[in-house]
Amino acid sequence: MCVLTGSGFAILRAMSLVVTGTIGIDTVHTPHGKVEGVMGGSCAYFAAAASFHAPVRVVAVVGGDWPEAHRRMLERFENISLEGLEVRPQGKTFAWGGKYFDNMNHRETLFTELGVLDEDPAQAPASYAGSDMVFLGNTHPAEQLSMLRQFPKRKLAVADTMDLWINVAHDELMRLLGQVDGLVLNDAEAEQLTEVRNAVSAGRRILELGPSWVVVKKGEHGCVLVHREGVATLPAYPVDAEQVVDPTGAGDSFAGGMMGHIAAVGLVDFDAIQTALAWGTVTASFTIESFSLDRLARLTCEEIEARMRSFRAAGRIG
Amino acid sequence: MCVLTGSGFAILRAMSLVVTGTIGIDTVHTPHGKVEGVMGGSCAYFAAAASFHAPVRVVAVVGGDWPEAHRRMLERFENISLEGLEVRPQGKTFAWGGKYFDNMNHRETLFTELGVLDEDPAQAPASYAGSDMVFLGNTHPAEQLSMLRQFPKRKLAVADTMDLWINVAHDELMRLLGQVDGLVLNDAEAEQLTEVRNAVSAGRRILELGPSWVVVKKGEHGCVLVHREGVATLPAYPVDAEQVVDPTGAGDSFAGGMMGHIAAVGLVDFDAIQTALAWGTVTASFTIESFSLDRLARLTCEEIEARMRSFRAAGRIG
Repeated sequence: MCVLTGSGFAILRAMSLVVTGTIGIDTVHTPHGKVEGVMGGSCAYFAAAASFHAPVRVVAVVGGDWPEAHRRMLERFENISLEGLEVRPQGKTFAWGGKYFDNMNHRETLFTELGVLDEDPAQAPASYAGSDMVFLGNTHPAEQLSMLRQFPKRKLAVADTMDLWINVAHDELMRLLGQVDGLVLNDAEAEQLTEVRNAVSAGRRILELGPSWVVVKKGEHGCVLVHREGVATLPAYPVDAEQVVDPTGAGDSFAGGMMGHIAAVGLVDFDAIQTALAWGTVTASFTIESFSLDRLARLTCEEIEARMRSFRAAGRIG
Repeated sequence: MCVLTGSGFAILRAMSLVVTGTIGIDTVHTPHGKVEGVMGGSCAYFAAAASFHAPVRVVAVVGGDWPEAHRRMLERFENISLEGLEVRPQGKTFAWGGKYFDNMNHRETLFTELGVLDEDPAQAPASYAGSDMVFLGNTHPAEQLSMLRQFPKRKLAVADTMDLWINVAHDELMRLLGQVDGLVLNDAEAEQLTEVRNAVSAGRRILELGPSWVVVKKGEHGCVLVHREGVATLPAYPVDAEQVVDPTGAGDSFAGGMMGHIAAVGLVDFDAIQTALAWGTVTASFTIESFSLDRLARLTCEEIEARMRSFRAAGRIG
């Protein structure tokens, strides 16, 4: 694991981290090529990214068609517990296809086959019930609320969401926001939720809805943390166009690296979350260098640490 | 002056800085209100911002209608030399009107009256001929080239440009790029010039055209420096929507703060320019808090230094 406590944190004790979300079979076209039937899903990217920083427990469901190679791929990551990964032999795994265009900033969804996601949600195994930290990957907020109840001892709950739920499940989303500590969403979603385009102002509005902090992700432009104790802002790790092979999973990897660091240091104050943003950014910068989890699967802690040093150098202020 | 050499620079010797560009009479509508007949122009914003960091010499031309109050406003800034400000009594001052919409990211030009800008360009006085640093504010590249010849002893020449010249004066712009050390432009312009959307990659292409470094400005998303010696990236100073009264002049103020810092420390290497980006960012963050130069006119060095500390804290990486 890669805990670098550069800002002088004393590590009190690591916290246990659980993530709920999707594991899917992806088909992705980018200007760099096309892959079919590869590992995807928010939970897969999150868990892989988090696992470099802290142990992470997966709660997700797949179908009988889930490739054995995908399981082996996830098992290559130390620190990922798959005890909460349910296989439904009669069901089909969630499948998603997407195509990115030249500038990698616009993608078109080619198909979405919900499969087992259209059935009962996954249940966390009893052994996860005492988890300290829960990350609720993007899904219907009613399902996120029900998932939350499975972790009564949580000290920190953070949710992701998306435009669809802001539109079709606004009331449930509002209820969810009253029960989580943190929210992670992208800038367009923050604007949609608050009708405010400025990330800092939108973040402040979201705090009024319940969370103590919100991270507004801006893709290639970095992120903004709006926290009851202050505001932080980070650029993205600067990359050439040629280095961006496939942006899929960048946001989930960012969240995984961030939450993994928080779990590792066992602190949830403003300073700890601000530091965690940088670890999330650096971890995600590797994800986009390949299709699927390929780059993360061969990533080393030394590479993450070296890139963090280079990020600090490139982003030095004054 | 506000030279904070936070990164351990030894100040060798300050360099003399000259800026060429427009001084205009602006009419601006924003969601915060409307002002008419106020001081504007790239040269005015640049000089005001630079003056907090180093002495700055103005080369510009206005008409007989230039309000005495505008001169007094510029004279309030210590460190601005107006010896190169030519008044043509028979001419009319450049006038510009613009309107910003709700999100402050789109503006519409209401009118442009070139006035004296349509006549012979300003000439630098003999006393400026030995200037070390020249900033060529945005104008026709042929005019920028002719301006450059007036500073034969320059050690550093940096140009701004815009979409119009990329379209209508491409050849002259290419010639200019072969003769300047640095280029400052926004992300849309960098893409237009290189047909590459990624700021780092676009910057690298621009280096092939001549400059040793380029700053790609991304407005609310900060900036990227691509230099032969490396890449740096900075977020913008995080502000609430309510703090943004008028974005006019933010880019010119950024360039002024940046060049002012470079002049003050007398160094033009990668580290010095990277540090200068932050001073430019912080200086510009005040400009947008008011219409015209109002905020800069009452700005103190202590405020700039305090905001730099707060920027460093908000932008700490890892």
